[in-house]
Amino acid sequence: MKFLVINGVNLNLTGMREQGVYGTATLEQINANIKAFCEKNGDSVEFYQSNVEGELVNKLHEAYLQKSCDGILLNAGAFTHYSYALRDAIAAINIPVAEVHMSNVHARESFRHSSVISEVCKGVVCGFGEKSYLAAIVALKN
Amino acid sequence: MKFLVINGVNLNLTGMREQGVYGTATLEQINANIKAFCEKNGDSVEFYQSNVEGELVNKLHEAYLQKSCDGILLNAGAFTHYSYALRDAIAAINIPVAEVHMSNVHARESFRHSSVISEVCKGVVCGFGEKSYLAAIVALKN
Amino acid sequence: MKFLVINGVNLNLTGMREQGVYGTATLEQINANIKAFCEKNGDSVEFYQSNVEGELVNKLHEAYLQKSCDGILLNAGAFTHYSYALRDAIAAINIPVAEVHMSNVHARESFRHSSVISEVCKGVVCGFGEKSYLAAIVALKN
Amino acid sequence: MKFLVINGVNLNLTGMREQGVYGTATLEQINANIKAFCEKNGDSVEFYQSNVEGELVNKLHEAYLQKSCDGILLNAGAFTHYSYALRDAIAAINIPVAEVHMSNVHARESFRHSSVISEVCKGVVCGFGEKSYLAAIVALKN
Amino acid sequence: MKFLVINGVNLNLTGMREQGVYGTATLEQINANIKAFCEKNGDSVEFYQSNVEGELVNKLHEAYLQKSCDGILLNAGAFTHYSYALRDAIAAINIPVAEVHMSNVHARESFRHSSVISEVCKGVVCGFGEKSYLAAIVALKN
Amino acid sequence: MKFLVINGVNLNLTGMREQGVYGTATLEQINANIKAFCEKNGDSVEFYQSNVEGELVNKLHEAYLQKSCDGILLNAGAFTHYSYALRDAIAAINIPVAEVHMSNVHARESFRHSSVISEVCKGVVCGFGEKSYLAAIVALKN
Amino acid sequence: MKFLVINGVNLNLTGMREQGVYGTATLEQINANIKAFCEKNGDSVEFYQSNVEGELVNKLHEAYLQKSCDGILLNAGAFTHYSYALRDAIAAINIPVAEVHMSNVHARESFRHSSVISEVCKGVVCGFGEKSYLAAIVALKN
Amino acid sequence: MKFLVINGVNLNLTGMREQGVYGTATLEQINANIKAFCEKNGDSVEFYQSNVEGELVNKLHEAYLQKSCDGILLNAGAFTHYSYALRDAIAAINIPVAEVHMSNVHARESFRHSSVISEVCKGVVCGFGEKSYLAAIVALKN
Amino acid sequence: MKFLVINGVNLNLTGMREQGVYGTATLEQINANIKAFCEKNGDSVEFYQSNVEGELVNKLHEAYLQKSCDGILLNAGAFTHYSYALRDAIAAINIPVAEVHMSNVHARESFRHSSVISEVCKGVVCGFGEKSYLAAIVALKN
Amino acid sequence: MKFLVINGVNLNLTGMREQGVYGTATLEQINANIKAFCEKNGDSVEFYQSNVEGELVNKLHEAYLQKSCDGILLNAGAFTHYSYALRDAIAAINIPVAEVHMSNVHARESFRHSSVISEVCKGVVCGFGEKSYLAAIVALKN
Amino acid sequence: MKFLVINGVNLNLTGMREQGVYGTATLEQINANIKAFCEKNGDSVEFYQSNVEGELVNKLHEAYLQKSCDGILLNAGAFTHYSYALRDAIAAINIPVAEVHMSNVHARESFRHSSVISEVCKGVVCGFGEKSYLAAIVALKN
Amino acid sequence: MKFLVINGVNLNLTGMREQGVYGTATLEQINANIKAFCEKNGDSVEFYQSNVEGELVNKLHEAYLQKSCDGILLNAGAFTHYSYALRDAIAAINIPVAEVHMSNVHARESFRHSSVISEVCKGVVCGFGEKSYLAAIVALKN
Repeated sequence: MKFLVINGVNLNLTGMREQGVYGTATLEQINANIKAFCEKNGDSVEFYQSNVEGELVNKLHEAYLQKSCDGILLNAGAFTHYSYALRDAIAAINIPVAEVHMSNVHARESFRHSSVISEVCKGVVCGFGEKSYLAAIVALKN
Repeated sequence: MKFLVINGVNLNLTGMREQGVYGTATLEQINANIKAFCEKNGDSVEFYQSNVEGELVNKLHEAYLQKSCDGILLNAGAFTHYSYALRDAIAAINIPVAEVHMSNVHARESFRHSSVISEVCKGVVCGFGEKSYLAAIVALKN
Repeated sequence: MKFLVINGVNLNLTGMREQGVYGTATLEQINANIKAFCEKNGDSVEFYQSNVEGELVNKLHEAYLQKSCDGILLNAGAFTHYSYALRDAIAAINIPVAEVHMSNVHARESFRHSSVISEVCKGVVCGFGEKSYLAAIVALKN
Repeated sequence: MKFLVINGVNLNLTGMREQGVYGTATLEQINANIKAFCEKNGDSVEFYQSNVEGELVNKLHEAYLQKSCDGILLNAGAFTHYSYALRDAIAAINIPVAEVHMSNVHARESFRHSSVISEVCKGVVCGFGEKSYLAAIVALKN
Repeated sequence: MKFLVINGVNLNLTGMREQGVYGTATLEQINANIKAFCEKNGDSVEFYQSNVEGELVNKLHEAYLQKSCDGILLNAGAFTHYSYALRDAIAAINIPVAEVHMSNVHARESFRHSSVISEVCKGVVCGFGEKSYLAAIVALKN
Repeated sequence: MKFLVINGVNLNLTGMREQGVYGTATLEQINANIKAFCEKNGDSVEFYQSNVEGELVNKLHEAYLQKSCDGILLNAGAFTHYSYALRDAIAAINIPVAEVHMSNVHARESFRHSSVISEVCKGVVCGFGEKSYLAAIVALKN
Repeated sequence: MKFLVINGVNLNLTGMREQGVYGTATLEQINANIKAFCEKNGDSVEFYQSNVEGELVNKLHEAYLQKSCDGILLNAGAFTHYSYALRDAIAAINIPVAEVHMSNVHARESFRHSSVISEVCKGVVCGFGEKSYLAAIVALKN
Repeated sequence: MKFLVINGVNLNLTGMREQGVYGTATLEQINANIKAFCEKNGDSVEFYQSNVEGELVNKLHEAYLQKSCDGILLNAGAFTHYSYALRDAIAAINIPVAEVHMSNVHARESFRHSSVISEVCKGVVCGFGEKSYLAAIVALKN
Repeated sequence: MKFLVINGVNLNLTGMREQGVYGTATLEQINANIKAFCEKNGDSVEFYQSNVEGELVNKLHEAYLQKSCDGILLNAGAFTHYSYALRDAIAAINIPVAEVHMSNVHARESFRHSSVISEVCKGVVCGFGEKSYLAAIVALKN
Repeated sequence: MKFLVINGVNLNLTGMREQGVYGTATLEQINANIKAFCEKNGDSVEFYQSNVEGELVNKLHEAYLQKSCDGILLNAGAFTHYSYALRDAIAAINIPVAEVHMSNVHARESFRHSSVISEVCKGVVCGFGEKSYLAAIVALKN
Repeated sequence: MKFLVINGVNLNLTGMREQGVYGTATLEQINANIKAFCEKNGDSVEFYQSNVEGELVNKLHEAYLQKSCDGILLNAGAFTHYSYALRDAIAAINIPVAEVHMSNVHARESFRHSSVISEVCKGVVCGFGEKSYLAAIVALKN
Repeated sequence: MKFLVINGVNLNLTGMREQGVYGTATLEQINANIKAFCEKNGDSVEFYQSNVEGELVNKLHEAYLQKSCDGILLNAGAFTHYSYALRDAIAAINIPVAEVHMSNVHARESFRHSSVISEVCKGVVCGFGEKSYLAAIVALKN
């Protein structure tokens, strides 16, 4: 299978910001671990990150129009909680999307308890640090 | 690692009820698949199911007092949405608990959108059918 | 037809508690009247009562798995207002269930105004004292 | 006993509108069945329908002032959900009123889940199609 | 001055219904008292009552188009709480309207605590039984 | 095509009331303009106005039972915000209905921001003064 | 009869503040007019004003303990909207209290739409400027 | 006097779980202290604990039917916040019940701020650690 | 130990107002009973009452600055439900405060169900009449 | 007149996504139809689409600063429901804006029922498929 | 310019209470720093503090009636969140008032997130410790 | 000190849009005044403006990663009310941020009353026109 991992707003600072919440591994290191996990399973994986909501929408459209992957892992960061634009983009495409969060959003501020994209995703994984990505890979597998 | 998989109310009917939502695999078959997955990874796993909230509480207490496992997968069924008793039981014990749902609860009735146990669990996996259990195993691993 | 009448929590005290609300007839006497009504119509009826939510769930499962009746009258007592476990059990079985209340729940405390099981029942009868059971029998007939 | 069956707004189209919800029997046919049921029990019954809220109020007043019946079945249609005028009319008269709905209002749009008249009615029957009327007759009997 | 007293839904039963709340004086007797009060002050007064919301609207329109009075006392009964139609009718005309209630609506059911017409009336008098009408006459005077 | 334009409560005062909101054209003048617009397009149009909710329901029923038009423009006035009776009448008939408002209801009092009929109408046009009717004609056209 | 007129917080500035809302008559002038009105009717009247909530409570207690009046007019100013202390003081005494406001509180900011004292007052008069006091005198009379 | 102390769900772990909140004394030790306090006052006391909601209901019924005590101390644990079943059981019996909590529930998570049983209990004591039980004994005495 | 008992607004009327709720004992008599209870235990106690919120704040400050007591019983009366000023005063001082109510506030009007001071008090006792004070003494004792 | 048609997020996929909701016509085809309609009326029209919220803001600014059109049709897609940025941009410019939706947003998910831009637009058209654009053209004309 | 700095309830304990939130500088020291800052700019400043809401109202009235200052800094303490009495006093006077808080109220308990006085103040400064006062001086300057 | 002033969406139109709210000074002129104020105090200042949310996030990241300033003034415009993305960016960096608004957001539309960024900013200044920026400079100083 071919996976696409999309990380949204502020996730480029992972490992540098709020280390109590997110740990010290950088996004680069996390991506390297995901890649190793995928390759061990015979899967390939591509990565994308942006802080601009519209560019994340564009990336989802591109994956759909170019049929460039079989499953998407989307950690939308704070966009999770208000971006109906991303929600509509996910609903518009026919590729299964797993919503991923490293932290347990339900144990943080109340605004993080609701996600406007969960309803149109295939499923959700949150709370297991960078293992959330690996679990989502397993969950989407076949 | 030693895992304990606890299934709550109505999950004994899995494969028989609402097949559009839960599929046709019975709980027995699902458990067999989980077991195979664990054994392949060198882990052991035990299973428990009850429709009585207090017995689920007792099972969590027992695991804690007897140190009988290293990680718990809890699919509490409908208790997820109101059982503060289970919530307190999870908070009381020092074993990481993964909240698991086969269906995407966020794409169903609104009362299923809120979980009273998520805040005290390690993390949550939902929406991937029986694969939700396998993903949670990976997520809790080490 | 074969009916099953399930009474939930605290209904064993009927005739003894809050007589202004529930009257002085005991559950035994009410059941006797229901039985007479059914037999007059050529129907049979069975009775069950428990104060344990999980046992009510088990009884619903049993009726379903053993095909032991054609219609169920469920007076869940206070469970009506929060037991999503019972709701899921009703939704899981293919026997029509009539939600029954002796008192007019809408003329009492506000928490009694909402029922979490009505949506998955066939219909509801409330407010007519023990006649609520007889009306439900008529309503489910054929 | 003498019953009065009052049907409110849009119920004159029963059998013609939303047949998936209300079935194909016309109001005339339903009334005929209610009449037969009453006569079999030695009761008489009268029928009234209007789409004008104020005329329904007037009919309730008339029944009260003329003591023309012993029990009323009121299917107020959509007025159920906002007509405090009807509520006050019911509260003003000393004849027991059974609120009746053919459909299970709790399994439909959320605005149908609350009734402003239930609190002042004797009781409620809903969800059993035209049998809801028969059940209400039984419930009000003596 | 010329006053118009408009009584709305169910007020024709005043003195007959809920005497604990409304007393035993009939609407006829109350109107006679209002008339005497007005004549003593050299004012004239006309009375209107209807149970049909649209007819109350028509009466307000008529008063406006025929310039038939200098002040209106409106006891809309239960329409007070939901009739935006009456509200718009009051806002449409250039005659000051006093909202009147005999009972203290704030000491009754919560749905009576909010009025959709108060905002567009000149003022409100409630709670003083039939004296509420007399107080409103004084309040609107000049 | 044959259009039916139904205007509800208080709209008979258009041009006389709240001219800052509704302008100075009377309903008669507006209707004449709509008629001219329709005739230019080869369509016919009929007009109806009432302040009584039940009569508006009756008119919708009549159009349906007599198949007297191909499209309906409904400006329900204040009924828009609470008349579930009208909502059910619209849902009952198989003629497309366009909800029309001359003012921009979203820029006025908050109770005007929600419409109980929009969900069952084909679509909505609001805010363009009497041009709202013309736009709705175009929108319903074939 | 003996009346006591109590004016609460900020009312000492009447005639000086927000003249668009309250007019230009000072509290002294208003009180003089009330006095004249009472004396014409053979009644006596006393006046009290304070900006301190607890002193208003004390005044109500004093009237009760000294039986110094037969009826109270209370314009509590902004305390109307949150002073449960005043509410309890009113409920504690057996003298009828009329809640009075010069402005139409329902046509102003939303926080002014709810009064925490209305429920325990005899009745309410609002919106008629200084005439509100006169109307309340009439309303409390005998 | 004869007291019955009922401890609900998870309280069997007292002294072992969340020691920052509940201290390190076990339930056994706390019960011994309560017993000593009672005996010093010439009162007797019995203890019961269960994690099953229905069994707590049964215990309350038993105390009532067997008249086995004069006052009940109920620490329902998390059931406090949603068990309308317990509420109805308390309302059904004629023995005064004191609601007891060791922690100050108002200083913890918001779901702990509301209790569904307080309304039908005699009174409430919370926040004083195991002294809450002793205070409740004093409060119920005679 | 040295206790300070502070009674807030309207509590000076205890025994005179709403005797159904508060009984007939005056505050003086209640204080005498508390004093006797304390002295029997070798404790001393001081009393303070005011209807002015700011004076209650001042008293709390004084106790703190003069270290004049070891524990405070505060029955704030209606201030309980909105005085964030008192809340901040309690939080500002390092003397444990027990919130006390004679009536069961949870069985009364809904505004009495929430207290803005509970969160910063040590604990709460309510519902046991004047025994609530004695229970609080026991609860604060060492 | 010169019109500017601005389509927002995900509308570039029109005709490709959710065809049950939006039909099969692509945005290009819809624009061609709008253009033909305008030219027939002697009007000109320009088109713009972006998935980036800030670029839509920029386009509105540009139209305002360059006075490049006389009327704007804005289909903001999902931004409609949360983009206060777009709202402020519309309010900042002195060109009338018509809010347009192809689907009937009121018959879809509840988050689509509220628009944060309606209040500052001239008016709204929704539900008529691509005809919504044509209706808006007519509505803005002159 | 002449400034008046008014500090409300509990602020007399600044430097003594909750030092983590408010720091260790006493109100006296803070006032001295404000005075120095003003004098450096050629402005004069007066200070007032009270724990009694009504006295703060009186002080605002006095400033208005005596024209004793050109700008007011008001740190109302907890009164900020419920004192509509202060709100009305601020609205009544024609001197610009700056609402000041030392702590960032938005980062504390939720009841501190809303202020009932902000709407009628000129502006708000919060979160910068005692520098909030200096910033407000600059903000009000000419 | 080195300050960074970031202005968000629509603020490039300052001086051109809604002059009643924002005045006629352009952003350029305001920035010039801020610069003069800073230089007078021996501080330096840099300016940035964008209408794209993600670019504002990028600017905050850049300031953090390049340690390019000691304090940030952020006027996020309408993003203030929903951009959790900006909130997380502010929380991610260790530079104090002052939230600034020229208008008094609490005196405008209700959606402007809540800010999703206040909680993670150092403090807030609003309502003083362009002086809000100067006040914030003073507030952040040292």
